[in-house]
Formats: sequence, structure tokens, C-alpha cells
Amino acid sequence: MRLGMIGLGKMGMNLALNLLDHGHEVVAYDVNPEPAQELATKGAVAASSLTDVVSQLTGPRIIWMMVPAGEPVDHVIHEFVPHLAAGDIVIDGGNSHYKDSLRRGQALAERGIHFMDVGTSGGMAGARQGGCFMIGGNKEAFQIIEPIFRDLAVENGYLYTGEGGSGHFLKMVHNGIEYGMMQAIGEGFEVLDKSQFDYDYEDVARVWAHGSVIRGWLMDLTQNAFSKDPQLEEIRGVMHASGEGQWTVETALELKASAPVIAMSLFMRYRSLEDDTFHGKVVAALRNEFGGHAVVTKE
Amino acid sequence: MRLGMIGLGKMGMNLALNLLDHGHEVVAYDVNPEPAQELATKGAVAASSLTDVVSQLTGPRIIWMMVPAGEPVDHVIHEFVPHLAAGDIVIDGGNSHYKDSLRRGQALAERGIHFMDVGTSGGMAGARQGGCFMIGGNKEAFQIIEPIFRDLAVENGYLYTGEGGSGHFLKMVHNGIEYGMMQAIGEGFEVLDKSQFDYDYEDVARVWAHGSVIRGWLMDLTQNAFSKDPQLEEIRGVMHASGEGQWTVETALELKASAPVIAMSLFMRYRSLEDDTFHGKVVAALRNEFGGHAVVTKE
Repeated sequence: MRLGMIGLGKMGMNLALNLLDHGHEVVAYDVNPEPAQELATKGAVAASSLTDVVSQLTGPRIIWMMVPAGEPVDHVIHEFVPHLAAGDIVIDGGNSHYKDSLRRGQALAERGIHFMDVGTSGGMAGARQGGCFMIGGNKEAFQIIEPIFRDLAVENGYLYTGEGGSGHFLKMVHNGIEYGMMQAIGEGFEVLDKSQFDYDYEDVARVWAHGSVIRGWLMDLTQNAFSKDPQLEEIRGVMHASGEGQWTVETALELKASAPVIAMSLFMRYRSLEDDTFHGKVVAALRNEFGGHAVVTKE
Repeated sequence: MRLGMIGLGKMGMNLALNLLDHGHEVVAYDVNPEPAQELATKGAVAASSLTDVVSQLTGPRIIWMMVPAGEPVDHVIHEFVPHLAAGDIVIDGGNSHYKDSLRRGQALAERGIHFMDVGTSGGMAGARQGGCFMIGGNKEAFQIIEPIFRDLAVENGYLYTGEGGSGHFLKMVHNGIEYGMMQAIGEGFEVLDKSQFDYDYEDVARVWAHGSVIRGWLMDLTQNAFSKDPQLEEIRGVMHASGEGQWTVETALELKASAPVIAMSLFMRYRSLEDDTFHGKVVAALRNEFGGHAVVTKE
């Protein structure tokens, strides 16, 4: 199929290359012109603007956005919309909040444009060689674009999840689970590291990645990380977060769903971003107040 | 190699069959005579008693215990010891506490007997077709028995973990991680179940098991469970625990290692075992005391 790819960062670029591998025609655009020019050497059409992308496609146009969640998605849609027609299909493959996707889907539906909210998982390697896609939106529109996902995904690696918003909702929860799984793995190695035993962590991750109950891609990546830095001496335990974990916890609160492990994983990420904590000062001060326990004073 | 297998439950039986597949000679014993007789029809030697197992082996004897953790392991060792000689190798492949394994290893070392603490993972399927083994104990003894593990494990699925106790310690932490990962998966589906969307959970688990970041054996098993019971209507959310999660948390406390997600996973299991809680009564009573909030009275 012929489709536009907007946003040629780590994910968009790899998806575009994967599409080209499978014989699709890609009209590529990024605010930075270099990646589109690079893709042009591999068979893509480099577009010079968002409107140029639209003009290079014929109806029903298929345009895949792979841009940062939030304002950039609205900006791209705002630029596009005057040039699109009923029946066109806009795919948001980024990590947008499902409520934004619901809003965007409704706004575009008023013009007869199909908005598909697609959660993408599997990292850069997945985007390049076969990933996992959770696809919400109009079912007939899904059937039109299904061949794209059949090619981009690993076997069994795409799912039509139902009405608009359901794709990004499912991806959000996927990431919440990911937070919990990663924190559990991290805590396990923390216990090993404080133990009396002298483990080689790469070996540990390798054996856990082969035949154990906790084997899976995250353990493969753990092995990979320890293979580069056996004690992770080169990095600090600062755990940034890009939003989906927080959204999962916010959603759990809205739904009154009990999700303490995902919430705790998120809070441990926040804790890791601070060198000192105010709650720690309060607790230390209180121990001093009632028990005369020594406090650690600021240097 | 020729070795004894003591304890022919789900794990021991499957390990014995796996050993026979690989041309090993198995002297099989269980308190219940039937499984040994069944194994005899497949080429094993059925032993009639623990001492019979010993008499059917020649030095250095290799005896694999696959019996429930705790007293049964001590009982079997106690029965064996008078009949064993220096150089013999006793393998505990069960989920023993690593401190018990340290104690047993030291006691047997005084008689020149090698005690190997082996954490076994991968479930029944792993025992039968290729599992994951974490092997602590004397290194020279490990080298003698390594061919057994080369045959029983999947590729890269066994590891000599170092001194005595390190194998069961590693398996304990593995199970602690497993608690956290399982709780995170469970919480994710809880959020899906309370959401406005209508997901097919088998489909969700399938797509997450293929190409996503959270893919792995636990997600394969999740898919399998939903394939049998799409809404898990036939079971209650009672989460039993067999000890290793608790030991991981106890060990984290001893080591002052921060492991809140693993601890929370354990506490959520305890919570699930109760139809009502005393802490809930206390909190409800306090809300009533200070705010006059209604309590739910006992029927």
C-alpha cells in the first residue's frame, strides 16, 4: 500500500524501513529533512511538508503519525485536516493518552475521516523487524489498513481492539504492567546484590532467560545490559518515566481498580529522581522530636 | 549417568522421564510405589526403599531429591546418610530455604558428602522437556554432575551459581520476581476489566505475547488460561503462596534491601486469602468514630 509516515524519529524511521522492506510505498516527512532524504535513498518519497505528504497520496489516503504524544499530535492533525477528505485514514502510532485519542477520533469522524489509535510495542527492534500493534478505531477502516499491520507485526502481533481509544488504552495498560515487571526484576537483583553470594549478573539473567518461569524479552534485555556493564557501574539508578505508567495509575484511580504494584513502581520511579526527599526530612524530624533520635544534618 | 531420583511427584516424575529420554539410568523411589513402577515400564529401576536406592548405585553415588521443602528433605537425608560414603553427591532439586541448604551442606561436608542445592524452574513442562537449573555447591562435584544438567536444561538453561546455598537463594529471588511480575499482569487485566472497553482477554494476552515488551512465558500462560475460561469465571481470585515469595521479602528485610513491589505482591496474596479483614473493620470503625460514616454491618 501507499501511505504517509510523519515523524521519522527512532520509531518512525524503523517502521518506515520495515514498510519499505515489505514493498509498501512510503511518503516520508519529518520536521528535520535529513531522515526523509535518507529514506529516499532506500525507495521512499521524501515529502517537503505536511501538505506535500497529503498531495502525494490518493484517496483513501493513509497517514501514519509517529510523533511525540500531546501537542505535536494535535499540531499535525490541525495542519492536515483542511487537506483531507472523507474516507481518509489517520493513524496515531505514538503513545497518546486514550482520552486524547477519543477526542481526536470524534473530531475527525465529524469530517468522515477515520482516526485509528494504535499502540506500538516492541521497541526499535520491533519497529524494524516485527513489532506488536494494538489497533483501535473504526472496524471497516481497520480492514483497509490491516495488510500494513500484517507486514509490520510479528506473527500474532497485531490486534483490532475495538472502538476508538481502545488501542491506546491497551498500550497504556501494557506499559503499566511493564513498570511493575521491571521494578520486580530490579528488586530481585537488588536482593542478590546485597546478599552474601557472589553472582555474575549476566550469567544470572541468562539462566533466568532460558527455561525459567520469568523468561521473556525483559530478561533478555537484562542479560544484554549486564553483558555491557557487569555491575551497571556506569549508570545511576535514576528511573525516568514517559507518562504511560502515571496514566495507568490515574486510570486505575478513576476506575477504582486496585493496582498497588503498578502504583508502587511509579512511586519508586519518582523517588529515584530525587537525591533527597522532603518526606524523609519530615520522618527524620519526627523521630528526633519524640525519641531524640539523631538526624543527618545537611552538609 | 546412573542416578537415584527420590520423590516422584509432578516435578520428580517429569525429571525422571526427561533423564530416561537422554539415556541416563534412573533408580526411582517414592513413598507411594506406583510412580516408580510406572517408570520401570519406561526403563527405570524401581527401588523399594531409600536404602535400596543407595544399594543400587555405585560410588560416587548421585542421588537427586525432589521432595517437599522442609522436614521431608531432612528426613530423606537422615535415612540416607549412614549408607553414603565420601565423594557421594546429594542433589536437592526442590524449593528448600537456602539457609536449610547451607546447614545441610555443612553437615554432609563433614562426612565428605557433596550437597548440591539446585533451584529448578520452568514448571512441569520444563522438567519434562527442558527446564532451568540454578546449581550451588562444590564446584568439582558440579563438574561431575554437569552432564545431567546439560541434558535436562534448555540451551543456556543451567548455571553453576557458586558456593552452597547460592542455588536455592537464586531460585528464591526468581520466585520473588515472579510474584511481582504476576501481580503486575493481574493488575493490568483488572484495569482492563473495569474499563469502558470490551476486550477479549485471550486476544489481549496473545497480542502482548507476540512482539511486545512484556512478552514472555507468563504472558503465554496468561493467554492459555484465558483460552480455557475467557473471563476466568470458574475460579476465584484467591492467590495461594508456597513460601519463596515470603522468604524473598524476609531476606530483603534481613539485608535491608528495598523491595516494595515484591513485598506488596506477597501482601496482596495474603489479602486474597481472607473474605474479610480485621484492618478493614478497624478503618471502617474509625471512619464511623470521627466522621459518622456508615459502616457495613455483619449479616
